[in-house]
Amino acid sequence: MSATQSQLREAAKLLLESENVLIFTHQRPDGDALGSSFGLKYFLESSGKKAEVFIPGTIPHRHTKLFSGYLSDLPEDKFNAFDTFVSVDCANPARLGAPEFLTIEELRTKRFINIDHHGGNSMGSAFFNLVSGNTASCSELLVKIMCASEITIPEKCASPLLTGMMTDTGCFRFSNTSADTMRNAAILLERGAELEKIVNAVFFSKPLNQMRFENELMREHLKFALDNRIAYACIPPELAKKYDFNIKEDEGLIDLLREIDGVIIAMLLYEGPGGIKISMRSKESRYPVGPVARAFNGGGHELAAGATYEGSIGDAEKALVEKLTQLFA
Amino acid sequence: MSATQSQLREAAKLLLESENVLIFTHQRPDGDALGSSFGLKYFLESSGKKAEVFIPGTIPHRHTKLFSGYLSDLPEDKFNAFDTFVSVDCANPARLGAPEFLTIEELRTKRFINIDHHGGNSMGSAFFNLVSGNTASCSELLVKIMCASEITIPEKCASPLLTGMMTDTGCFRFSNTSADTMRNAAILLERGAELEKIVNAVFFSKPLNQMRFENELMREHLKFALDNRIAYACIPPELAKKYDFNIKEDEGLIDLLREIDGVIIAMLLYEGPGGIKISMRSKESRYPVGPVARAFNGGGHELAAGATYEGSIGDAEKALVEKLTQLFA
Repeated sequence: MSATQSQLREAAKLLLESENVLIFTHQRPDGDALGSSFGLKYFLESSGKKAEVFIPGTIPHRHTKLFSGYLSDLPEDKFNAFDTFVSVDCANPARLGAPEFLTIEELRTKRFINIDHHGGNSMGSAFFNLVSGNTASCSELLVKIMCASEITIPEKCASPLLTGMMTDTGCFRFSNTSADTMRNAAILLERGAELEKIVNAVFFSKPLNQMRFENELMREHLKFALDNRIAYACIPPELAKKYDFNIKEDEGLIDLLREIDGVIIAMLLYEGPGGIKISMRSKESRYPVGPVARAFNGGGHELAAGATYEGSIGDAEKALVEKLTQLFA
Repeated sequence: MSATQSQLREAAKLLLESENVLIFTHQRPDGDALGSSFGLKYFLESSGKKAEVFIPGTIPHRHTKLFSGYLSDLPEDKFNAFDTFVSVDCANPARLGAPEFLTIEELRTKRFINIDHHGGNSMGSAFFNLVSGNTASCSELLVKIMCASEITIPEKCASPLLTGMMTDTGCFRFSNTSADTMRNAAILLERGAELEKIVNAVFFSKPLNQMRFENELMREHLKFALDNRIAYACIPPELAKKYDFNIKEDEGLIDLLREIDGVIIAMLLYEGPGGIKISMRSKESRYPVGPVARAFNGGGHELAAGATYEGSIGDAEKALVEKLTQLFA
């Protein structure tokens, strides 16, 4: 599902016809969620609009050097002052980071613009949806929208959007990276995206306690299945405590398993709110983890997906390894 | 120092006027050395030329999935059958991987084309030099030459050249990455470069023994200086032996130090042939390691450089840390 030029132009037009915009993204925002949100905010502001990003709670430490100035709390009366609501990079209502009083049903009655790159997006705006499942990141989709608007991308947007593009493509290594992706990144570099600053802040910024946590995890808890084609780890809660480390901060953890020679699928399991959190990555298109995640009521992309398992971590491990093994049958 | 269009066209013309080409690169070839060599070989072959790559010894394991079919041994009579000699990605005669009988003085009497992206290149061909110090990789310089030739880049060249581009830019994360770099990568993707295959072979292919070697190195031998702005490790020879691991295979090892939050300069020291091998990286343009490498008779780029130190590893550590510290004075 690719966005057409006319859809991109329509999205740009609707965004620019708004006056006071509230931007949402998914809970536990990653680089693409934040890059999309702030890239859009600065784009709208540079066109004379008002725009705010709403994020419940805090953002991961690694992103605090690049992203600041968002609402974490929003009284209902202030909420009603916005005329347009935009959700970026959020695949479904359950993941939306919105004020508690807001239901998806109410949001759908508003001037609500849904912009996403998750193929199975179910936000279901009654007003306007732009879902492009084959665009590598929501930030890249916004670059396309901005290019379609014929407004030169403001310099302030360039770094947030490049951050998002780099996060979701694993720095242009994942197979969602296309020639278009590279050209859109080139546009952002020309518009002033600060590569050195982004990379040092987001990719070369591993805190020492995280490094030590990862070191022990890989030494003591790495497991393999199916002749090493599956590598996985169940993260003991006490390990994270030992290093005073918040697992949710670690977007790149799973890549330590993925980068091992011969591994095709990498998986992490850990106890989270609401059950065992499962995160999966595949290195080869012919062994997609998307269907496995969906079989456990999860979602994501074909090569990067996740789910929540209700039960013990041991049961989750057994069930998931079995399901993943079937991919190779 | 940037290559002009007329220089690029001239390089393409001279390459295509040759009939039987021998391609050299630097010793201990990395992804850019190999990508440049094989990319050029396939380009020439697709235009009906004969071309061979000469590499003394073996190539790193991680590159064997992508690169094969080179000469490691070349009798003097066969050498004389080549009409043109091309050196790619080789900064100086001391680093050239050439047959033992060949001196630089003799090479300079030949139809010798020197193509490189190291600013201080001293190969000094009397026939033709194309040195572009601000191009991120020699592979990218070859993309530019091929585009200037007006021959569509053959599909077979695309993957080797993208491998080289990705190696020398750290997957488009290092500050040598420009908008042009991204556009040249886009061209290669359109010409059929196999991103998934490259990434799995080169970047997601860490052998288990390497992972365990790195794990112990980071746990037991990581040192800091200057409030963690300098991170470094002296690799004990017995550690590499313990894990049956060849340090020279590990292009990415230094990135484990570089990626730590707050670290600006990363350095590795280990005992090699001819002295203590020193490898340095800087994350910030205002603290270049190039001058430090040159102060120890080494070379490289401003943010990625190396040298060989004659003396004990302890003396090397002391001398280098002192010199690096002066950068921050």
